Amino acid sequence: MASSSPAKTAEGRFFEDFRLGETIRHATPRTLNSGDASLYSALTGARFAPQSAETFARAIGYPASPIDDLLAFHVVFGKTVSDISLNAIANLGYADCRFIEPVFPGDTLSAVSEVIGLKENSNRQSGVVHVRSRGFNQRGETVIDYVRWVMVRKRDASAPAPETHVPKLPEAVGLASLGAACPRIDRAAFDEELSGSPYRFEDYRAGERIDHVDGVTVEEAEHQTATRLYQNAAKVHFNQFSEGQGRFGRRLIYGGHVISLARALSFNGLANAFHIAAINGGRHVAPLFAGDTVFAWSEVVETAELPGRDDVGALRLRTIATKNRPCADFPGREGEGYEPHVVLELDYWALAPRRP
Amino acid sequence: MASSSPAKTAEGRFFEDFRLGETIRHATPRTLNSGDASLYSALTGARFAPQSAETFARAIGYPASPIDDLLAFHVVFGKTVSDISLNAIANLGYADCRFIEPVFPGDTLSAVSEVIGLKENSNRQSGVVHVRSRGFNQRGETVIDYVRWVMVRKRDASAPAPETHVPKLPEAVGLASLGAACPRIDRAAFDEELSGSPYRFEDYRAGERIDHVDGVTVEEAEHQTATRLYQNAAKVHFNQFSEGQGRFGRRLIYGGHVISLARALSFNGLANAFHIAAINGGRHVAPLFAGDTVFAWSEVVETAELPGRDDVGALRLRTIATKNRPCADFPGREGEGYEPHVVLELDYWALAPRRP
Amino acid sequence: MASSSPAKTAEGRFFEDFRLGETIRHATPRTLNSGDASLYSALTGARFAPQSAETFARAIGYPASPIDDLLAFHVVFGKTVSDISLNAIANLGYADCRFIEPVFPGDTLSAVSEVIGLKENSNRQSGVVHVRSRGFNQRGETVIDYVRWVMVRKRDASAPAPETHVPKLPEAVGLASLGAACPRIDRAAFDEELSGSPYRFEDYRAGERIDHVDGVTVEEAEHQTATRLYQNAAKVHFNQFSEGQGRFGRRLIYGGHVISLARALSFNGLANAFHIAAINGGRHVAPLFAGDTVFAWSEVVETAELPGRDDVGALRLRTIATKNRPCADFPGREGEGYEPHVVLELDYWALAPRRP
Repeated sequence: MASSSPAKTAEGRFFEDFRLGETIRHATPRTLNSGDASLYSALTGARFAPQSAETFARAIGYPASPIDDLLAFHVVFGKTVSDISLNAIANLGYADCRFIEPVFPGDTLSAVSEVIGLKENSNRQSGVVHVRSRGFNQRGETVIDYVRWVMVRKRDASAPAPETHVPKLPEAVGLASLGAACPRIDRAAFDEELSGSPYRFEDYRAGERIDHVDGVTVEEAEHQTATRLYQNAAKVHFNQFSEGQGRFGRRLIYGGHVISLARALSFNGLANAFHIAAINGGRHVAPLFAGDTVFAWSEVVETAELPGRDDVGALRLRTIATKNRPCADFPGREGEGYEPHVVLELDYWALAPRRP
Repeated sequence: MASSSPAKTAEGRFFEDFRLGETIRHATPRTLNSGDASLYSALTGARFAPQSAETFARAIGYPASPIDDLLAFHVVFGKTVSDISLNAIANLGYADCRFIEPVFPGDTLSAVSEVIGLKENSNRQSGVVHVRSRGFNQRGETVIDYVRWVMVRKRDASAPAPETHVPKLPEAVGLASLGAACPRIDRAAFDEELSGSPYRFEDYRAGERIDHVDGVTVEEAEHQTATRLYQNAAKVHFNQFSEGQGRFGRRLIYGGHVISLARALSFNGLANAFHIAAINGGRHVAPLFAGDTVFAWSEVVETAELPGRDDVGALRLRTIATKNRPCADFPGREGEGYEPHVVLELDYWALAPRRP
Repeated sequence: MASSSPAKTAEGRFFEDFRLGETIRHATPRTLNSGDASLYSALTGARFAPQSAETFARAIGYPASPIDDLLAFHVVFGKTVSDISLNAIANLGYADCRFIEPVFPGDTLSAVSEVIGLKENSNRQSGVVHVRSRGFNQRGETVIDYVRWVMVRKRDASAPAPETHVPKLPEAVGLASLGAACPRIDRAAFDEELSGSPYRFEDYRAGERIDHVDGVTVEEAEHQTATRLYQNAAKVHFNQFSEGQGRFGRRLIYGGHVISLARALSFNGLANAFHIAAINGGRHVAPLFAGDTVFAWSEVVETAELPGRDDVGALRLRTIATKNRPCADFPGREGEGYEPHVVLELDYWALAPRRP
């Protein structure tokens, strides 16, 4: 007789399945190649010069065009979904995300997560899980290291609560941790006509606001294709049959795709901020759906010289993305929350070349 | 004076144009590269470990990450369309499809078909054509060999009927024909954490049913892009102007795309069944359209050791795909036909690693 | 205090910003690889044999499969947009476009434009700018050279008018300028079964008309993805929020995507016209929108032997593309204008192999 075998299908971990200190190796390793870079660029609009042209990358000191930082991040993130957030109610945040080694076409990324925080919610239906996830290349070098926390359902509300542990996280990544993934660059060779902007590190000032002007409308086929490119199998992004019966009635766009679109829009105003060195924190303020048009603006929160480096400097940027609302007047926080239409607040460090 | 020259435009063969025993070399050869693999994965969600990661593939014994079996199949199939099925009323079935050589990035595939069956329909308006199609690589090695049969319109109903010949086809591909495209693998090196499943060949039992749980909604842009990736130019997939006036009022999704989606969904439950060794038969029970959500489940029909191989075993799988209907209760055949919502029944052999 | 800094955001040149004789180097160089070729093919349906198969390309004399001529053109064109046509009211035309060196995977393209014509409009609100744009590879060789002219808004209507200069442009590219990007090919090795057509140069006659029969419906996700692949950031293609309030209420499809679709459709009838040697002129007669179905037909305007070459001959083709209207009766010009539904008239030289 035929028999059902639900056991072979991964149902994902529930809150009570996580153990503090536990290490989880994720499936599936993924080799990134130049075709992935092409597809990423075509789906998001990314066009920073070193990632776009071998000639530009080599001229400034890279051995080859690096894979876009966010493409590498999404691929690492994607691997963690099946183990960490398949039963998540919400992705609550990221912190302490550092880009440690550059990723080049041909590199294979794999991912491991460590459970570093557990706190059951007072309703006993769910809890918050903190994980530190690391992406490795084929030589075992850590390329990306970050913390995220998610609210995860319990399978059984009566399962005993674990001891509460909430990790301390830095408000921002420290300067000493920036730039490891960026080779020493030849700032004189950084051609400002080819890169698309005459503005270097020294031209930015704390407090400066930049409207990135352009808007981009997202289609279902685009975000689905991008999210599959990252092998992120979270069902909320793909399954209209079930999502149509859910809270929003629609497929939810992967938050990482919103980050990529905002970053690509930021080329207009930040074209020389070519490398993301760290993400201090990210917050998905509201959901984005197909048909929405994304706009973005950035504030320069801080400018910082990097210890021991005169080739690049660090810009701490706070990028706000909105939907269906241009950003000429810099919409952002409002009271305890955000103005309507804001979908993303991202706090990150980008590197820009210094003046020769 | 200008003159019309319809002769230069391919109109495709009609039923009376086929001759038993005739061999047709198809246009256009196609070099597959890693960018094709990326795009295939991004459009279908395919993520089996050897095809996803060079490191994984090499660890188990492949010289490189192989091109997904179905991508190779679709490319070979696509070439045959202009010559075989441009005037098809229906694709009736596949059989005896064997994967004989692995395909790697850089390989160029071409295709040849032989007419192995002809039978005019009693209405004299059309007939059934059987072809055996073979895909070759640039060294002339057969990589894929399969039979399909299609119902093709006659240009002229009064054209004389050919002698009827219907080939005998195996109900399933025999064990001796399985595994040629799979190198001897190092089963101890098959890392179950990286592959995404602890279940090996020995863990599956005939009669076992697996609901693949997840659903994926298909967009017009996705299936059109995939079908062009395969250079399949059948107009029913691309031309809303004409299809809008046709039977369904909509573009029909290429059946092979449905197979790829079902196979990708089957990762959840069959992650280690990493290679399709043969397709015994396939039936497109109902059409799929953009906006539909595909679900799938599989039954293990048979498990078989392969002669002379202790590295991998064969699972004969029957995968059913539905539209807009989850598969927790395993919908399938009903009376002479199928339950509503079923779109595909696929009977195939997949290989999975044996226990070390 | 935070302060706005609009200066860092590129607003594009207005009419009064252009100077006759001025040279503009464009951002961002772009390395094209085999993944770009795959994506181009999947988005447009391009499938000419030398661009599709390494084996075919090498057999006839190419060192490798060349990048599709139009993909290279769009990438060069895309670079010029931010500097030339961000404030364009209309792209008025192209002329004297020559393909001078083949482009292969791994080549990096950059672009430079020279202002060769300026004429203020009588309303003083705008003017027509002519630029000669050149695409270069990483060795500094010119790969593409063309003229285009656009109507550009003035920032300030009272800005003084420049001296009027309108360049003389050839009605068609001369024979001596054709074929530089095509290596000497081995016409005997040009396999007509693999290429998809038995018709060679000698089989075409001036005045001959070819209906390309097939139609292809365009989706928003497809044209947006293609246009980003070319790094063309013109907002009219991407921003439904602003375009929804504009003249058409919709996103406008990049005219170059229409050219690519028409060229891909022309495979059916012109499969051996494998290389675009020059574009004599192009006119976007009407806008195309997502949901429209593109059809095309071509007239052979002239056939010409090339000086010093007995391997290939040149076909001067006039390709008309329509929307939502099949081309069996060859719709085209009508009085001073065009029949309804015509979207494109393209006049170009393609090369086809001569008989062995």
